Amino acid sequence: MTTSSDPTEFAVPELKYDDHGLIPAIVQDDATSEILMLGYMNERSLRMTLEKRLVTFWSRSRQEYWTKGETSGNVLELVDIRKDCDVDALLVRAVPHGPTCHTGHRSCFYRELGDD
Amino acid sequence: MTTSSDPTEFAVPELKYDDHGLIPAIVQDDATSEILMLGYMNERSLRMTLEKRLVTFWSRSRQEYWTKGETSGNVLELVDIRKDCDVDALLVRAVPHGPTCHTGHRSCFYRELGDD
Repeated sequence: MTTSSDPTEFAVPELKYDDHGLIPAIVQDDATSEILMLGYMNERSLRMTLEKRLVTFWSRSRQEYWTKGETSGNVLELVDIRKDCDVDALLVRAVPHGPTCHTGHRSCFYRELGDD
Repeated sequence: MTTSSDPTEFAVPELKYDDHGLIPAIVQDDATSEILMLGYMNERSLRMTLEKRLVTFWSRSRQEYWTKGETSGNVLELVDIRKDCDVDALLVRAVPHGPTCHTGHRSCFYRELGDD
């Protein structure tokens, strides 16, 4: 038997994941409070986020782990993570290095509902 | 044939809903930029939100339409709605009337990940 002192150990069991084992994670710019994106984490990507201190999702489209900015360099440096009252959503505060959106915008939410 | 001038008409077809016909909607305090909650909308609750100017979700647990604060009075008055680059998430800016969380907290995200 081993006793783990991994500080990320606590994070997992208390959360409610959906049928696909995922939990939505809102990413907010820690300095400006701007919402940058919404992604999905599973248990392991949450652990990877805590360990690497870089926001890491499960990509639903590519079905793979995705450390945001790993290729582009536009990483999201972790500040802290909050959970909601129902423990089925996360709020991740981060320092963005470069634009978060693949379109080059700072935030993925750059359009109003009615915009083309 | 009728010609509709309903300003909410545009909102629906362009969005990507999930297998349950839902899209996640992040609610942000328009004045402070604080994240208040994450809820889910379907096509009709999005329309209701735009028509009533009060944020209205589809409650997954109760399987019913849910205009936030309808009972408590703690409504979320709509300011505007943004969509993300993938059109599968919404960012709703609102004026909260009273606390948003059922626990009495301003925001549902009042705990750090490791808190009990």
